[in-house]
Amino acid sequence: VKVLRRAAIVAVGSELLTPLRVDTNSLFITRELNGIGIDVVLKVAVGDDRRELADVLRAVAPRADLVICCGGLGPTDDDVTREVAAEVFGRPLVEDMARTAALRDRFAARGLEGPMPENNRRQAMVPAGAEVIENALGSAPGLWLEEPGAVVLLLPGPPRELEPMLRMLAAGRLRERSQQAVIVRRVVTVAGRIESETDERLRPLYLEWARAPVPVSATILAAPGQIELHLSARGPRDAADSAVEEAARQAAGRLGADVISVDGRSLEQVVGGLLVANGLTIAVAESCTGGLITSRLTDVPGSSSYVKQGIVAYANEAKSALLGVAPATIDEHGAVSGAVAAAMAAGIRVRAGVDVGLGVTGIAGPDGGSPGKPVGTVFAAVASAAGSRARRFQFFGERERVKFQACQAALDMVRRLLMGR
Amino acid sequence: VKVLRRAAIVAVGSELLTPLRVDTNSLFITRELNGIGIDVVLKVAVGDDRRELADVLRAVAPRADLVICCGGLGPTDDDVTREVAAEVFGRPLVEDMARTAALRDRFAARGLEGPMPENNRRQAMVPAGAEVIENALGSAPGLWLEEPGAVVLLLPGPPRELEPMLRMLAAGRLRERSQQAVIVRRVVTVAGRIESETDERLRPLYLEWARAPVPVSATILAAPGQIELHLSARGPRDAADSAVEEAARQAAGRLGADVISVDGRSLEQVVGGLLVANGLTIAVAESCTGGLITSRLTDVPGSSSYVKQGIVAYANEAKSALLGVAPATIDEHGAVSGAVAAAMAAGIRVRAGVDVGLGVTGIAGPDGGSPGKPVGTVFAAVASAAGSRARRFQFFGERERVKFQACQAALDMVRRLLMGR
Repeated sequence: VKVLRRAAIVAVGSELLTPLRVDTNSLFITRELNGIGIDVVLKVAVGDDRRELADVLRAVAPRADLVICCGGLGPTDDDVTREVAAEVFGRPLVEDMARTAALRDRFAARGLEGPMPENNRRQAMVPAGAEVIENALGSAPGLWLEEPGAVVLLLPGPPRELEPMLRMLAAGRLRERSQQAVIVRRVVTVAGRIESETDERLRPLYLEWARAPVPVSATILAAPGQIELHLSARGPRDAADSAVEEAARQAAGRLGADVISVDGRSLEQVVGGLLVANGLTIAVAESCTGGLITSRLTDVPGSSSYVKQGIVAYANEAKSALLGVAPATIDEHGAVSGAVAAAMAAGIRVRAGVDVGLGVTGIAGPDGGSPGKPVGTVFAAVASAAGSRARRFQFFGERERVKFQACQAALDMVRRLLMGR
Repeated sequence: VKVLRRAAIVAVGSELLTPLRVDTNSLFITRELNGIGIDVVLKVAVGDDRRELADVLRAVAPRADLVICCGGLGPTDDDVTREVAAEVFGRPLVEDMARTAALRDRFAARGLEGPMPENNRRQAMVPAGAEVIENALGSAPGLWLEEPGAVVLLLPGPPRELEPMLRMLAAGRLRERSQQAVIVRRVVTVAGRIESETDERLRPLYLEWARAPVPVSATILAAPGQIELHLSARGPRDAADSAVEEAARQAAGRLGADVISVDGRSLEQVVGGLLVANGLTIAVAESCTGGLITSRLTDVPGSSSYVKQGIVAYANEAKSALLGVAPATIDEHGAVSGAVAAAMAAGIRVRAGVDVGLGVTGIAGPDGGSPGKPVGTVFAAVASAAGSRARRFQFFGERERVKFQACQAALDMVRRLLMGR
């Protein structure tokens, strides 16, 4: 039995060839495969087109030990993966009658009216000799084809169906077939520095890492609102783990308080962790970010224990009525000002009875800018028992990008406050 | 000279085969190519690996009229695209001495110390017979290789360099070589139906569309919280435009009030449009969605004219203090109940002085579920001059997925209210 080292991922769906969609399943798949020492050497996106898909499967199968093909297993005429794989690998399709019955039951159980549409039966067709991989969350099962040169795995496209199926395979039969070395990755996230400066500061470490017994490779990438240092090492899990951990530790040592996390945790997770660790609560008063800060904070499981309240107040009257911002402050400094951000932070802190108040006001665009305060001007303030401080930022780009960056900058102010620096 | 109809995009870079990065240049490239009538039939991501890239170029070139290969043209040893293309297409590399001199000037002009690293000379190597495409924003020029079966275009990876270069080509020589037809796309979004049912209902139209003078192709996709019908047609711009427009109109006729939009507008854009058209204002009281509804509503430019307020109230006391939910209602029905959602909607409507109040309460998970109200249970309510109505939903998946679906369902209730059905 061939050891699985090299994988190719084929994403099927005409929508992936439009300007509107990009395949993201492959990111999850890559993470799972890397975790059991399988490298991804090729990714392909192809449309719901029999001939194109057949060409791709024929071209890709000889180049990989494992081909994971996702999408195109649904009930519609567009869903051609099952038929094409059957044809390319010379396996006639056979209807699995038990599966057809199960599909009918599943359809009936969902309380839908009328009989199951006949096209759903396609999902019960199985290429001869293929093994069926159960799909607990959808009607399209996965299929495992053991070909002479490669394992070909067909999985459904919806992430919530694909992910648990692949996770199970990666913990079970794929792991048994993989080599014993793994690829370990780790991301160090950094706020408040630019890419080239971060690179310059870390350069002396790169050579050291490259020469280590388990070499660590490093790449610096600029992401919205942060810089990321991507570290990876391949080897026995323990050795690779400690190599990237040590590298992350050294990088963090050189970057100091600008490091958000050394384990890929998001800024909202880090802030949440610091609030829990210090037994503190937070409330957020937002204007231009429109609820995004509160939403990101509450993406973290368990956040209801420390996020006490969020108020989105665009209008000046709402800022006064809900947050106690004095109309005179608005008149004097303008609604977009450090003084108003500070008053919003202080106001929600007192009214919500929390330890930390965060206030953000700005101009997300596309309208509302002025020469003195162009689109992208944002003021953020944190208020705590130690008083309040406000900062001015200038962001660039479209409305959503400004919102995101404002959110990132504001949460980073909370992070630095909680770290005491 | 061959007309360019079918393009393949090859993205080169080992980072694109990690779990952390996905190629997005291809979205921009696809938009530009579609605009001049060129279809993308295949996308490939491959690492900085000579053998793999050579295999990909050999496999892809016969399948497309135009191969656009991006990335791997830089000065480092990792940058192999130029050499590999030269080898695959049998063109020796020739140093362009004028270009080497220009690179030295560019290096000196940036005020860097010492002589230019010899590595940089690689960027002056040109495959014999290739035309150089100038890069105004970086040191790696593009290369145009006229092969017998296909045009092979090598472009730098950084979007700010690639985009202006491709835009120029698409307005000039690529357009001259393309057929005179364009590809027009349109997305119809649908709420409250499942994929197979939508498909079943639209099936009679597919055949009609396929047979029309300008045929329209259709794909149905399940996206989080909605179903999408992707329509596309190829032809002279006006004919293609009216073909997809007519198809969208027919699809909308069959799907009725479940259609969110026939032009790809998001639910929040549609709701915003309906509010503006009716001169109405809205305020949102959120619990489990944590601010996401307000954030999505305010992603729409101009939303500050109709989104008056958002309040995120997790704690029961906050629901009472900020929204006027009677403690007795919470005691009797529980914080996650239709009665509380309705009271939240009615409360914020009155307190914010708006026309429409939206209230959402639920259990996003992973904790907090009970047998009667498992994780994913969500109640949403809309309040207006006509009174208030609440609905119960059951969603599945992780916290962020539940949040998103709850958000979608709640906004869809507002949409239906504003449409009067």
